[in-house]
Amino acid sequence: MRFIERSFKVNTTRRNEFIDITQEVEKIIKFSTVEIGDVIVYCPHTTAAITLNENADPDVVHDLLHTLEKLIPHKDSSYLHGEGNSDAHLKSSLVGVSEQILIKDGEMQLGRWQGIYFCEFDGPRGRDVIVQVRGE
Amino acid sequence: MRFIERSFKVNTTRRNEFIDITQEVEKIIKFSTVEIGDVIVYCPHTTAAITLNENADPDVVHDLLHTLEKLIPHKDSSYLHGEGNSDAHLKSSLVGVSEQILIKDGEMQLGRWQGIYFCEFDGPRGRDVIVQVRGE
Amino acid sequence: MRFIERSFKVNTTRRNEFIDITQEVEKIIKFSTVEIGDVIVYCPHTTAAITLNENADPDVVHDLLHTLEKLIPHKDSSYLHGEGNSDAHLKSSLVGVSEQILIKDGEMQLGRWQGIYFCEFDGPRGRDVIVQVRGE
Repeated sequence: MRFIERSFKVNTTRRNEFIDITQEVEKIIKFSTVEIGDVIVYCPHTTAAITLNENADPDVVHDLLHTLEKLIPHKDSSYLHGEGNSDAHLKSSLVGVSEQILIKDGEMQLGRWQGIYFCEFDGPRGRDVIVQVRGE
Repeated sequence: MRFIERSFKVNTTRRNEFIDITQEVEKIIKFSTVEIGDVIVYCPHTTAAITLNENADPDVVHDLLHTLEKLIPHKDSSYLHGEGNSDAHLKSSLVGVSEQILIKDGEMQLGRWQGIYFCEFDGPRGRDVIVQVRGE
Repeated sequence: MRFIERSFKVNTTRRNEFIDITQEVEKIIKFSTVEIGDVIVYCPHTTAAITLNENADPDVVHDLLHTLEKLIPHKDSSYLHGEGNSDAHLKSSLVGVSEQILIKDGEMQLGRWQGIYFCEFDGPRGRDVIVQVRGE
């Protein structure tokens, strides 16, 4: 059993944004030479998240961000937290800060339409993504 | 450390539906003979999900699906994605496409009321579930 | 590869409540002496959850609970489930019942603001948290 860990930076440019990080994760898996196991993609932030979703039509990401914003508005008179980013904290807990993808024959078992997204909910910021590949 | 992976098909019959797959996962764990470790239940789709929830009273699943539909309606004039399933993509990211359940003494440590559900949000379709048992 | 598993009790005092369990998990990791790997924090319940979020300003937790309650009200005439806790079941599936945190150099790689929360959505109750540390 081996554990290979790497991290990389993501620079976001808008308050709400999904950034496709599939290729960065693929490179780390190739480097690890792990054939069977899994990869954990993790972000150590409380106003961002990691998710898997369609990376073919960019309208999907538009609709995800737009609908999240309608459900959980940026401004709401009932928020107490002084930083003005309570919406981002809730989106982070609902989407979740990590994803785990199975590895077989040295490749992630992503579905045909699945890509890995870093989800920014309180940008623009410099963010960290930690990737741990585990297996044999 | 051993990795045993199997997959199976789920045929859904409605647009929104939860299908209990607990027994299918239990069979794979029994077959694996893993005593301690974990199991990852993963679906490689962007309009479906995996979740743990009560499998005693079917009204719980009714209420989950009904409330999700109220929060994230199927039709909304602000969606841009042409396939008409933007709601399903968002439900998939919020519920999440995988669950990880701990194994001890050869059994999943599910709580008394917990079952494993495949969540269809854009059916009916034929779907895949991948199960990886890892441990010793 | 080693697997160290411990569990502990959480006694909640309100219907909706986040309880910071970061220190309990840290103690189990220290006890395990695992240097690299991960920890899974899991709750075997269908009306509770585990999440990572800010543990500096308590107003963040207030806003999370308040906004969740607005989105998914406790009482709704369309719920069929007789126990009156359908909202809690949905919150559990959306937030999720487990978190996985990477371990390196014997420490959880939590971000500066990240704490681990047990999320009660149908308290007050006595609850269980299962922690499995895995690695070398």
